[in-house]
Amino acid sequence: MPLKALFLNCTLKKSPATSNTQALIDLVADLMMPMGVECETVRLADYNIAYGTESDMGDGDEWPEIYTKIKDADILIPSMPIWMGVRSSLCQVMCERLDGSYRDLDPHTGQFPLYGKVVGVIVTGNEDGAHDCCATTLYNFTHYGCTVPPNADCYWVGDAGPGPSYIDAGQGHLYTNRTARFLASGTVWMANMLKTNGPIGTNLVKLTADAQKVSTDTAPAG
Amino acid sequence: MPLKALFLNCTLKKSPATSNTQALIDLVADLMMPMGVECETVRLADYNIAYGTESDMGDGDEWPEIYTKIKDADILIPSMPIWMGVRSSLCQVMCERLDGSYRDLDPHTGQFPLYGKVVGVIVTGNEDGAHDCCATTLYNFTHYGCTVPPNADCYWVGDAGPGPSYIDAGQGHLYTNRTARFLASGTVWMANMLKTNGPIGTNLVKLTADAQKVSTDTAPAG
Amino acid sequence: MPLKALFLNCTLKKSPATSNTQALIDLVADLMMPMGVECETVRLADYNIAYGTESDMGDGDEWPEIYTKIKDADILIPSMPIWMGVRSSLCQVMCERLDGSYRDLDPHTGQFPLYGKVVGVIVTGNEDGAHDCCATTLYNFTHYGCTVPPNADCYWVGDAGPGPSYIDAGQGHLYTNRTARFLASGTVWMANMLKTNGPIGTNLVKLTADAQKVSTDTAPAG
Amino acid sequence: MPLKALFLNCTLKKSPATSNTQALIDLVADLMMPMGVECETVRLADYNIAYGTESDMGDGDEWPEIYTKIKDADILIPSMPIWMGVRSSLCQVMCERLDGSYRDLDPHTGQFPLYGKVVGVIVTGNEDGAHDCCATTLYNFTHYGCTVPPNADCYWVGDAGPGPSYIDAGQGHLYTNRTARFLASGTVWMANMLKTNGPIGTNLVKLTADAQKVSTDTAPAG
Repeated sequence: MPLKALFLNCTLKKSPATSNTQALIDLVADLMMPMGVECETVRLADYNIAYGTESDMGDGDEWPEIYTKIKDADILIPSMPIWMGVRSSLCQVMCERLDGSYRDLDPHTGQFPLYGKVVGVIVTGNEDGAHDCCATTLYNFTHYGCTVPPNADCYWVGDAGPGPSYIDAGQGHLYTNRTARFLASGTVWMANMLKTNGPIGTNLVKLTADAQKVSTDTAPAG
Repeated sequence: MPLKALFLNCTLKKSPATSNTQALIDLVADLMMPMGVECETVRLADYNIAYGTESDMGDGDEWPEIYTKIKDADILIPSMPIWMGVRSSLCQVMCERLDGSYRDLDPHTGQFPLYGKVVGVIVTGNEDGAHDCCATTLYNFTHYGCTVPPNADCYWVGDAGPGPSYIDAGQGHLYTNRTARFLASGTVWMANMLKTNGPIGTNLVKLTADAQKVSTDTAPAG
Repeated sequence: MPLKALFLNCTLKKSPATSNTQALIDLVADLMMPMGVECETVRLADYNIAYGTESDMGDGDEWPEIYTKIKDADILIPSMPIWMGVRSSLCQVMCERLDGSYRDLDPHTGQFPLYGKVVGVIVTGNEDGAHDCCATTLYNFTHYGCTVPPNADCYWVGDAGPGPSYIDAGQGHLYTNRTARFLASGTVWMANMLKTNGPIGTNLVKLTADAQKVSTDTAPAG
Repeated sequence: MPLKALFLNCTLKKSPATSNTQALIDLVADLMMPMGVECETVRLADYNIAYGTESDMGDGDEWPEIYTKIKDADILIPSMPIWMGVRSSLCQVMCERLDGSYRDLDPHTGQFPLYGKVVGVIVTGNEDGAHDCCATTLYNFTHYGCTVPPNADCYWVGDAGPGPSYIDAGQGHLYTNRTARFLASGTVWMANMLKTNGPIGTNLVKLTADAQKVSTDTAPAG
């Protein structure tokens, strides 16, 4: 069964408005597909997503549809524009909603549903802020159970101050192209390895059981 | 050959002053050793480390000694106190000095010397700031080539404002103990998997070669 | 005319759900009112606020109503819970929407509409993340034209990991109470001083005109 | 008596190596001097500064010399390069050492020695990270007692990835020049206003005394 990569486009703009973040997603997806990976993009602004920290907030909340796709993917690529130097509000909404996954444990392994998945990140901005977006988002996803391979970030930003965006000014940028290749290669390689080596959850539970011999708490992860 | 874990204690205090960060390092090391891992701690404040971004700044610089230990380890655990809400200056010094590793490529794979290693992080503070320390540091180490397994952070902080430190107030804290087990289990599991599956560098170079068919740049990673 | 303080509660929960952030807002407002300050709270979750970076996104967008209140206040206190270690999505939405104020210049001074206002910040969380919320939000508001007096932040967080919230565990916390007094006193003192000393905008434009003698650009601030 | 501005250059390089951060400091100082401000730069790398959080760590520590200059200035401009996406280690060292000022209260006002001073910030980097440097550093200095006027940051960064530095690529950059004028004008205007309106400390203590009528703690600020 082929690997599945899910790109989570957190632009503030609904379809069909042009999204610079989508342009960089397309570059990375075009690198992944020849590796045999099925690529899908979800554009969060096109959904009616409630604020909150549960997996289903009811009342027309369309997050459950996205959450199902997330649980079905092997590779997750949160992708976002920078606003005011940090990640877009829709990326923050997504991370808040994934808090619900902490209460959705696998009945066999006791692990969170994102255990065993791989995460990378894509960022675009007119200027400054990519490091903060990448660091915060990758770290949040490791809490949910994802693994971060080396060089798992791909971003483009222009120089200081307001200016043109990725599509107008960043396409063909050597550093961004190079990191796109590394993001694609690294996440695919890691996802294959995790798939081949059995669920990380099971192994961790075993090691954890050993670890508990020198620990005093028996609570599930969280 | 057993796995080697290197804890990099970035406390501001020289030996033999009591280090709260060391106390939490000891807890994690005590979990790792029964898994067959050789554990060593380097306390950076005991070394004369120059400011800079090269691997050897000369003139009595003792960073090369630490850098050798880093390259020799399978698991790296930067460990730090929080000061002013962010990681300690000595942790920042370490990250700056590792910039030199970008110019120290493996002649066979073309990869950075930290490729294939696993990173986790330990943080202690009187209060607030652990998320920022963890996110920034884990992200920096992925740039150098490390992999971050799930739940690879272990921290203790007290509630808002000045207050007692880990040794006096945090030992036995349930959440910190639980994340200590996950940090130990996850990094060891990932390091074993990376060791068994051959150098991530080699595989990435192969995948990268494929990727280059749809790319236009041939520059080495950086 | 009395000073007006506007508290912008960025909790994810709609009224009438209990908001821990509101409880800390109430503590600070109770300190400000005896100083003769009119205090009002806007709870953003109760409004239908569009994603975007313009002052009016149309189509039922209720941000303009909030924006009018912001422009009418002397003291702005963005107030927020922490989620995933950073400020809540609704706080980020607010900062994104204020981007529209960059295109809403005063016809006389050429300054942004938030020039001359004072900013402080309130944060509540179960644990860790307050420094990041405060630093990012205060900095963003200085870009919009606000002044930050000393010790303009008041927060409560519990110790590491999940746990009780402010109302259950933080009320009466010495450090939080102390910083509440400093937040109230400092913002009121600064707002009075800025009001007495004429619009900061006018003075800056004069100084800026002098400054332009050694500069080559004549573009408006941005 | 003229205002004094102190630029704290946190480059990693000792004199006489070329410092890009110094070049941007010079631009801002050249704007301030015609406003009648005495400008001085301290280059921290030229001093032997101990790690720690006290105002004098003894044993040849040269921080006390810098600390005296800091206490003597009206305007403080921490200035720094970006490394690994965040502020340089020497800037972090400076912020850690200022922790000692919390225990150096004015005998009359009970306030920290940096109360009544104004802070702005200068950042240079090859790419990305300026927002994080500015936000963290400005926020830290408000804790020490400084006021942040609007638009108190001036930075230059290039586009994504490694590349040329400020001197080679950033001089004459419109946005950076514009923010240099605003940094200079705003900090000078605010410093004059704070000087004219008497020590912020005294006024705050009076307001604080009022505030204490509705508070239960009487502890000094901290």
